[in-house]
Amino acid sequence: MAAWGERLAGVRGVLLDISGVLYDGGEGGGAPIVGSVEALARLKRSQLKVRFCTNESQKSRGDLVGMLRRLGFDISEGEVTAPAPATCLILKERGLRPHLLIHDGVRSEFDQIDTSNPNCVVIADAGEGFSYQNMNKAFQVLMELENPVLFSLGKGRYYKETSGLMLDVGPYMKALEYACGIEAEVVGKPSPEFFKSALREMRVEAHQAIMIGDDIVGDISGAQRCGMRALQVRTGKFRSILRTRVWSTSCRRPSCSRQPAAITELARVSPSAS
Amino acid sequence: MAAWGERLAGVRGVLLDISGVLYDGGEGGGAPIVGSVEALARLKRSQLKVRFCTNESQKSRGDLVGMLRRLGFDISEGEVTAPAPATCLILKERGLRPHLLIHDGVRSEFDQIDTSNPNCVVIADAGEGFSYQNMNKAFQVLMELENPVLFSLGKGRYYKETSGLMLDVGPYMKALEYACGIEAEVVGKPSPEFFKSALREMRVEAHQAIMIGDDIVGDISGAQRCGMRALQVRTGKFRSILRTRVWSTSCRRPSCSRQPAAITELARVSPSAS
Repeated sequence: MAAWGERLAGVRGVLLDISGVLYDGGEGGGAPIVGSVEALARLKRSQLKVRFCTNESQKSRGDLVGMLRRLGFDISEGEVTAPAPATCLILKERGLRPHLLIHDGVRSEFDQIDTSNPNCVVIADAGEGFSYQNMNKAFQVLMELENPVLFSLGKGRYYKETSGLMLDVGPYMKALEYACGIEAEVVGKPSPEFFKSALREMRVEAHQAIMIGDDIVGDISGAQRCGMRALQVRTGKFRSILRTRVWSTSCRRPSCSRQPAAITELARVSPSAS
Repeated sequence: MAAWGERLAGVRGVLLDISGVLYDGGEGGGAPIVGSVEALARLKRSQLKVRFCTNESQKSRGDLVGMLRRLGFDISEGEVTAPAPATCLILKERGLRPHLLIHDGVRSEFDQIDTSNPNCVVIADAGEGFSYQNMNKAFQVLMELENPVLFSLGKGRYYKETSGLMLDVGPYMKALEYACGIEAEVVGKPSPEFFKSALREMRVEAHQAIMIGDDIVGDISGAQRCGMRALQVRTGKFRSILRTRVWSTSCRRPSCSRQPAAITELARVSPSAS
């Protein structure tokens, strides 16, 4: 336990990934990861600030939070940093009108955005929406633009559902980048701007925060580059063979819990608020 | 004309790309590019050897040749170097059993290939077959393999149909490469092995051959790296803005015809066989 105490010295805030850390998505809404509901409750009773930092882009924040609450998690919409609202802010600031290649579940987040006569493309984890026809339409829109601008809500390679591993938005971002000879702007983890906005909302400095996630690039490396500590869970998409492959180039060795839900460890060593 | 004569000095064989050079595909089989039927006929009457070097992977060679003959082109199956038969040779040599993510139109080329209990993945220009479900299946097969092997029949970014630009196999290859953290083996242009096999079949040395195509990477750069000359047509997918973008890193400046069909130029300066 001493090792954990040292590693967590000075931590005041915890950023939690959601998919693969709290639950695995899938048919019927997915299932909580064993121990996570209780670990989150314990964490919230501690003196640590808690915020959720997700690349979820198939659901609106409202739907995501509703689903998690039904699974038993103590979470509210105001505690969630997600890429769709962050993208809407950028679009408004820059006067951009997107062609949207997104999942119907997140479309309501873009209700206030002008999508007429598009001058950029936004892609998110569209799932089955990543048909050839939809990809080709996004490609054609980009190729018609003099200065093609592509936003990608995260760049995750894949995630885990109860039925198995599923392609995330990242591979489709790479496909459009290659097809058009451009580089996408990533909104979401591991973008430093995205982590910084989550820290601002939690009112905690980077060196006082720890990110807990299952993605070695999006969660771990991204948080470390912002000066945060990071803890990789061995749930969700975690696979030791791939972790090793990405290791040397992408990040310093993070803490890595042997427990099904690493947040249990964190809650255990945190002082209780009660 | 002197300039053309100099550039073509010593040329004994011509490799012709098909899509975007002879015809543009599309609804109802597509349409010949103006002047191409006559230019090919003239080329064949000359003393030059002619071979077709295509990345077409939506159709079997038989179907492709049948379609081109109906459009008026003088072409036979034995004159065509295409990636599907080349892939079958490699699979047999290496004892590999592929999971196929390919267009139904080319499936007959793989009739003699064992696809049970796959230990590699082959992708080709699957068109509408590039659904999320099919891509995810290919991804899952690769992730289950200890040493994932992915073959891509070409790596073209896009091609032109009569209805507009269409995503080719390359973007989907990039998607799977990124998702799995692997590098695909490309069978087709611009693979040097593929060009060399076409040259062997034509019995012409690289320095005596010229490649005519519309793709600055697949056709032009690929051929130049094999020691061939190259001529880029301004038909098919040719777009001056993209040509400029890719230029400096990918190839030396090729000859570039201002005619709708560049092969007209070539036929004009070649000695006639009759």
